[in-house]
Amino acid sequence: MKSEGSNMRSACYVGERRLELFDLEPRDPGEGEVTIDVAYTGICGTDLHILHGAMDARVTLPAVLGHEMSGTISALGDGVTEWSVGDRVTVMPLRWCGDCPACRAGCSHICHNLDFIGIDSPGSMQASWNVPQEVLVRLPASLSLEHAALAEPTAVAVHDVRRANLQEGERALVVGGGPIGLLVAAVARQRGADVVVAELSESRRELADKVGLQVVDPAAVDMPAFIAGWSDGAGVDVAFEVSGAAAGVQTAIQSLAVRGRLVCVAIHATPPPVDLFRVFWRELTLIGARVYERADFTEAVRLLELGAVPAAALITRVEPLDRAAAAFAELETGRAMKVLINCHDGS
Amino acid sequence: MKSEGSNMRSACYVGERRLELFDLEPRDPGEGEVTIDVAYTGICGTDLHILHGAMDARVTLPAVLGHEMSGTISALGDGVTEWSVGDRVTVMPLRWCGDCPACRAGCSHICHNLDFIGIDSPGSMQASWNVPQEVLVRLPASLSLEHAALAEPTAVAVHDVRRANLQEGERALVVGGGPIGLLVAAVARQRGADVVVAELSESRRELADKVGLQVVDPAAVDMPAFIAGWSDGAGVDVAFEVSGAAAGVQTAIQSLAVRGRLVCVAIHATPPPVDLFRVFWRELTLIGARVYERADFTEAVRLLELGAVPAAALITRVEPLDRAAAAFAELETGRAMKVLINCHDGS
Repeated sequence: MKSEGSNMRSACYVGERRLELFDLEPRDPGEGEVTIDVAYTGICGTDLHILHGAMDARVTLPAVLGHEMSGTISALGDGVTEWSVGDRVTVMPLRWCGDCPACRAGCSHICHNLDFIGIDSPGSMQASWNVPQEVLVRLPASLSLEHAALAEPTAVAVHDVRRANLQEGERALVVGGGPIGLLVAAVARQRGADVVVAELSESRRELADKVGLQVVDPAAVDMPAFIAGWSDGAGVDVAFEVSGAAAGVQTAIQSLAVRGRLVCVAIHATPPPVDLFRVFWRELTLIGARVYERADFTEAVRLLELGAVPAAALITRVEPLDRAAAAFAELETGRAMKVLINCHDGS
Repeated sequence: MKSEGSNMRSACYVGERRLELFDLEPRDPGEGEVTIDVAYTGICGTDLHILHGAMDARVTLPAVLGHEMSGTISALGDGVTEWSVGDRVTVMPLRWCGDCPACRAGCSHICHNLDFIGIDSPGSMQASWNVPQEVLVRLPASLSLEHAALAEPTAVAVHDVRRANLQEGERALVVGGGPIGLLVAAVARQRGADVVVAELSESRRELADKVGLQVVDPAAVDMPAFIAGWSDGAGVDVAFEVSGAAAGVQTAIQSLAVRGRLVCVAIHATPPPVDLFRVFWRELTLIGARVYERADFTEAVRLLELGAVPAAALITRVEPLDRAAAAFAELETGRAMKVLINCHDGS
């Protein structure tokens, strides 16, 4: 079943930290489904997590990875009337049950039985992909398919900023300058906030600087003094914890003003110590933010189209599908920001 | 200076875990001040903390303790026009600077330079007490001075419930059934919430039960199963962390529904581990709540007058001022809920 160079190839996690190319059987779209000719699929930190075996309880092997994508509809199943062959699309990769307490509370994006497409079901790191029409998001003609592959992580950032209820003129500290951190910073800046990114890695700080973001090395400066100087002693209105590190949580909490809001974006596999005394003392609010809702996805596409997101700078390189394993390995080194897989191009 | 039986006696923390009676020099009220004949002063957990030496950096020795009180105005300073001798009052024991970032942001109750009267300046555990008129809160004629001494902790509970934005019909779990926990539960119940108190101590559970609160022993029941059964699998809308224990934080977070709110009431001297994965996964909100604002105090007095707070049941006993040290010692054992000091009565 393993092959090279076929048009139906897919990049699959097969267990034991290995990614392999497979030829999967092409399938006509079912009722209510469309087939997408996948153009680009971005590699996400979650994909690396899967490769590390950290999500083996959730994935079915071999697992086609990929949930950040763009493409063109190539076939329509029965009952699809709102879409046409040739439509340029991205996918909001969530399916919900509609019946659990979360769905009944209007939070279907965090459904108790959520199907995260690309984790819980096959993803887009393949030439041709069938998805239910409900997950499609239309792309404007002026947005390149390359940049459109950033719609999903941009929607995460839009959701995070919305959860913060960030207002124009507020000070926002983004702790962690990886892909999501920089997207959060870009969206916050577009909202009119005064934004600083705190990031330990020099190369990531350089990239943040290159896209016009203010950036600080929390290991090199006295952060409390920096925050006090920036905010006239008040602290920041909003912090985004995007580092996933216990020290990042501490920096974020220490930086907040009275009634400041901390949006918890990163995944902390181990419960970090959290300074609840400070939470009490300054009446802080900590807000969990997970994935996105439909409005966030629509807004993400609009911001990409506007050029409010530095898409070109964030995309370190584009690799062909048969170099997917090498692309994952390079991301592991931390030297790349965002790597896209061209799902049609052979090497 | 130490004496017994004088009308001007005061109970002071003198360091080294000791509380002693002193006769302080009576002082006429200054401009804008009133003198209060103190009727009752409740002993708070914070007073125990001070006695343990945990707040030695904040207090000036000898420190007159006490910030939960009721009394009658006995003298007026110059410039006091809104109050009369004989007025029955309690005190909202906060003074703020009016100029710091917190005050400028409208959060003067958590002023960066807050003077918490009874901690940072002399408190009410004395027969006669001078306070600035700004801190006075009027008591209705129908409210006994004994019950009115609970206005301060009740205002804490009102503030906590308000910070939660608790709605009628919501499920609220109160983790910790001490004085503040039971007051939070009583206020939440009065707001129309469905309330359960989780408490490890049998005697505290018995008291909660006696005042008609639903109560559960988190060490004896399977809490996730209990919460699931209570909430049809959803989890609770609001949890109040009033235990100050890391395990209490964990119980509260595990019990919350999607988008549930955790109000952090208790003081955690050491940052406990907090399950930020769950915060992210269920999009929870953690909300710090500290002391109260003027509206909370007014509402506390109203609820005490209404009988919505089980004041009589919460007051374990009333002790004369010269038994203050013994009253503190009894509270240490955990056998008493709330002990009031009668600031005029000798033993």
